[in-house]
Amino acid sequence: MSQLSPYWLRDNCPCAECRDQRNGQKLFQITDLPDGLAIAARTESDGGLEVLWSDGHRSRYPLEWLEQQGGGDGRTEADKRPWTAADFRHGVPEASWEAYLADPAERAAVLGAVRRSGFAVLRGVPAVERQVLAVAGTFGYVRVTNYGELFDVRVEPDPNNLAFTSVAIAPHTDNPYRDPVPTLQLLHCLDNSAPGGDSGLVDGFKAAAVLRAEAPEDFAVLTRTPVPFVFRDRATELRADRPLIGVDPLGRIREVRFNNRSIGTLRGPAEELDAFYAAYRRFAAITLRPELRLEFRLDRGDCLIFDNVRLLHARTAFEQDGSRHLQGCYADLDSLTSTLAVLDRQAAALDELAGLFAGEGAGEYLGEAVTMAEHMLQAGALAEAAGAAPHLVAAALLHDVGHFQGALHGRDLMLGQDNRHSDTGARWLERWFGPEVTEPVRLHVAAKRYLCAVEPGYRAKLSEASEYTLRVQGGPMSAEQAAAFAALPGAADAVAVRRWDEQAKEADAGTPGFEHFRPLLAALMR
Amino acid sequence: MSQLSPYWLRDNCPCAECRDQRNGQKLFQITDLPDGLAIAARTESDGGLEVLWSDGHRSRYPLEWLEQQGGGDGRTEADKRPWTAADFRHGVPEASWEAYLADPAERAAVLGAVRRSGFAVLRGVPAVERQVLAVAGTFGYVRVTNYGELFDVRVEPDPNNLAFTSVAIAPHTDNPYRDPVPTLQLLHCLDNSAPGGDSGLVDGFKAAAVLRAEAPEDFAVLTRTPVPFVFRDRATELRADRPLIGVDPLGRIREVRFNNRSIGTLRGPAEELDAFYAAYRRFAAITLRPELRLEFRLDRGDCLIFDNVRLLHARTAFEQDGSRHLQGCYADLDSLTSTLAVLDRQAAALDELAGLFAGEGAGEYLGEAVTMAEHMLQAGALAEAAGAAPHLVAAALLHDVGHFQGALHGRDLMLGQDNRHSDTGARWLERWFGPEVTEPVRLHVAAKRYLCAVEPGYRAKLSEASEYTLRVQGGPMSAEQAAAFAALPGAADAVAVRRWDEQAKEADAGTPGFEHFRPLLAALMR
Repeated sequence: MSQLSPYWLRDNCPCAECRDQRNGQKLFQITDLPDGLAIAARTESDGGLEVLWSDGHRSRYPLEWLEQQGGGDGRTEADKRPWTAADFRHGVPEASWEAYLADPAERAAVLGAVRRSGFAVLRGVPAVERQVLAVAGTFGYVRVTNYGELFDVRVEPDPNNLAFTSVAIAPHTDNPYRDPVPTLQLLHCLDNSAPGGDSGLVDGFKAAAVLRAEAPEDFAVLTRTPVPFVFRDRATELRADRPLIGVDPLGRIREVRFNNRSIGTLRGPAEELDAFYAAYRRFAAITLRPELRLEFRLDRGDCLIFDNVRLLHARTAFEQDGSRHLQGCYADLDSLTSTLAVLDRQAAALDELAGLFAGEGAGEYLGEAVTMAEHMLQAGALAEAAGAAPHLVAAALLHDVGHFQGALHGRDLMLGQDNRHSDTGARWLERWFGPEVTEPVRLHVAAKRYLCAVEPGYRAKLSEASEYTLRVQGGPMSAEQAAAFAALPGAADAVAVRRWDEQAKEADAGTPGFEHFRPLLAALMR
Repeated sequence: MSQLSPYWLRDNCPCAECRDQRNGQKLFQITDLPDGLAIAARTESDGGLEVLWSDGHRSRYPLEWLEQQGGGDGRTEADKRPWTAADFRHGVPEASWEAYLADPAERAAVLGAVRRSGFAVLRGVPAVERQVLAVAGTFGYVRVTNYGELFDVRVEPDPNNLAFTSVAIAPHTDNPYRDPVPTLQLLHCLDNSAPGGDSGLVDGFKAAAVLRAEAPEDFAVLTRTPVPFVFRDRATELRADRPLIGVDPLGRIREVRFNNRSIGTLRGPAEELDAFYAAYRRFAAITLRPELRLEFRLDRGDCLIFDNVRLLHARTAFEQDGSRHLQGCYADLDSLTSTLAVLDRQAAALDELAGLFAGEGAGEYLGEAVTMAEHMLQAGALAEAAGAAPHLVAAALLHDVGHFQGALHGRDLMLGQDNRHSDTGARWLERWFGPEVTEPVRLHVAAKRYLCAVEPGYRAKLSEASEYTLRVQGGPMSAEQAAAFAALPGAADAVAVRRWDEQAKEADAGTPGFEHFRPLLAALMR
């Protein structure tokens, strides 16, 4: 193991004393650590690293955590796919609105395209007013600006912005005079029957990279010159002094602002202004190269989502006689990236669950005639056949997940070993599901003890194994316990799950596989 | 005149061909300018600089524009007032909610304090739920996050954030894992009857400046190390890699992110991690120095507004038995700064109007027995006495402003000289007032011609001078003209203004001065 930085290592201690186990936030201040903190003793094993600190604290770090690479937040050129128009000669990243809504994988593909390529198009979005806000709401939050919650792009009688005329607009980013600038833009086409008015996109990161390759000093000038962008109308006076090309502290392109219309008056010595204007003109010329400009047409119902700190957007002039109407709004990349990460996490969780059913689930189920996987799949199928709500189908399907060894790992172990499989399973599922799913799982053992107490003849129907575990689990409830149980939220759902549980022990019942339930589980994870 | 950069100068040409006169946006692309552009001839005079360009274009630049200094967008340390707690020993920047709403000067003072010192407190804000959103709405737009449109800061049973417990929270900025991070935060106190729970603020720019002075290399490390800030719950997975101290391309402090709880795992060689942690610990220790920490208590009805990319906020622990409930929301500095600029611009406009009344207004009024200022003040006072709506009082007060030479300047001249004083005045006033004020001004001459046409005996009552100008202006309207006039929006208001106009020619009528009308005008400018 390579050399370790002591304060870094200690700051990352995952123990319950150092870190809130519910939300992962640190519970100590960096200044709480003593001066001269050192590793007093360390033990390495396959499981990871155990450290005794000079102040007596003990930490354990999983090997996989120690070996993890850094990655990034996905916002610099390092995590983008730079493009020229030719890269989309077979089509642009797109999906139907219907598929986007129905299928998490399709949603992840669209949002992933925005993250990597800077844009995607949704087709068949209902062409009704304000719908663009609903599109933004599928992955984030609308950013309200001086243009309102949304803006209409069409010819206006007394425009406060050239966008609201019919003239051609050269490639630009929006709102550079705002700081923070809106990092995403959505344009939803309600009508485009006017001749002209085609859309153009240019990858500003690509253009900046071309500038860096062809004229490194010009690139440097544009990264180090704060440019005043201004906008002014009767109710507004905005100004932001930001470079045309923003780089992160490591020099990687992170943000492009480019809007010829709103560059205000830069001040400085003539030679600096000369250098800036030479670089600016060179960069502007690159953004106009035909091979960099992707042209396409937005038709009624299309909604373009794009990265407003990377892509420059443009439009050709159009004839005022025809009708062209887009509705737009702004949003932010951070929420889009978060939504995408949660979708990826959910897909990984479903893969993990599928793996449990295929792997450990194939094992014996405590002396029953079915495997654990068959038992749970049967329970899910019985719930589905009974017309139960999706959350109950999921609870029935997953009720015994606490039996799986694979589920007992990681941070759950740190909360203290718990051998009650209903609790363990529910807590493990909480990472992905709400209480409507996890509570019936948590209570399904109690539900058996409850039913045996209140329902004559119920106990007699238990399987041999279930009768055995009933006794281990405490036997039928007392009248008092039963009343308390019945008062719990989720008790009725737990009882329903329990009944399917008892029935789901038929050998060779021919139930559907785990994949059958994946869409239902995915929908519940939202 | 010093040496001038040609492309810079040309890019700033103010002529109507180069710049949309309505919104100030540029009408040409920087790439439209020819290579080798040069000044062919230049003429300097007191009025400014006239340039003939090598491509034949002509530009005129006012001297005052040429001599203007750069300034900035107000966001770096250059435009801030760094502070320690002692700077507020006589009290914090504050205002009553009532005064803030009623008085633009008070509003400007509060917003100016947020811009310069990073915070202000409004007292007596109605202690009702969701009121914090209304406070944000007075200067900007709410930024919605994963915490919702607003968030409740009180003890919660299953918190996803330590803020929602009763423990002490060390100085920090919020949401560093967002990019763009919300640049403003509002905290509105609905109840604070719990012992403890006091608020603390630390000027992060000051703390960063102290670090720079005491340990320049540590300061440099913190500006050049992107730190992963992370937040994760069931629906959210946010990450932003940003330095603790963000500087602009000129090295000036522009943004501080500091949140011990949400710093994720930095990766890199051990020596870099050692250097970062040494700098981070030193900076953290500075933020905890008592002399830097301003302590105060938010009471029911107080609303704290603060700069979330500059100030660190903290709270002491409180007893869970007592009741403490804040509602908070996020917003952004750009809109606050815009609102402040518009308020300043309006105050300057009112000063300019006041100057006109005091200066040129004291001159003769086309042969009447009153000065121009007296005439307009009388008209305003008559409208007020008649119980007219504020916009009509304003229109009556300002109806002849087009007579003032002072109003005929700047960009209005560039729109073409217009000697019809009603049009000129209305257009001049459009910079500050809506059509409800400017339309009656624009139509008040037409209204005389209308009244003389449709109202028997009206013409006979005109003053001698007014009878003279009636003929110059075209005489009474034809029946057709009168019908067209009556159909205009604003015609009725213009007629009302006209009647006060005719009456407002009494010598020694003893009208109130301009200052009497200032609050009414200020309210209409919003």
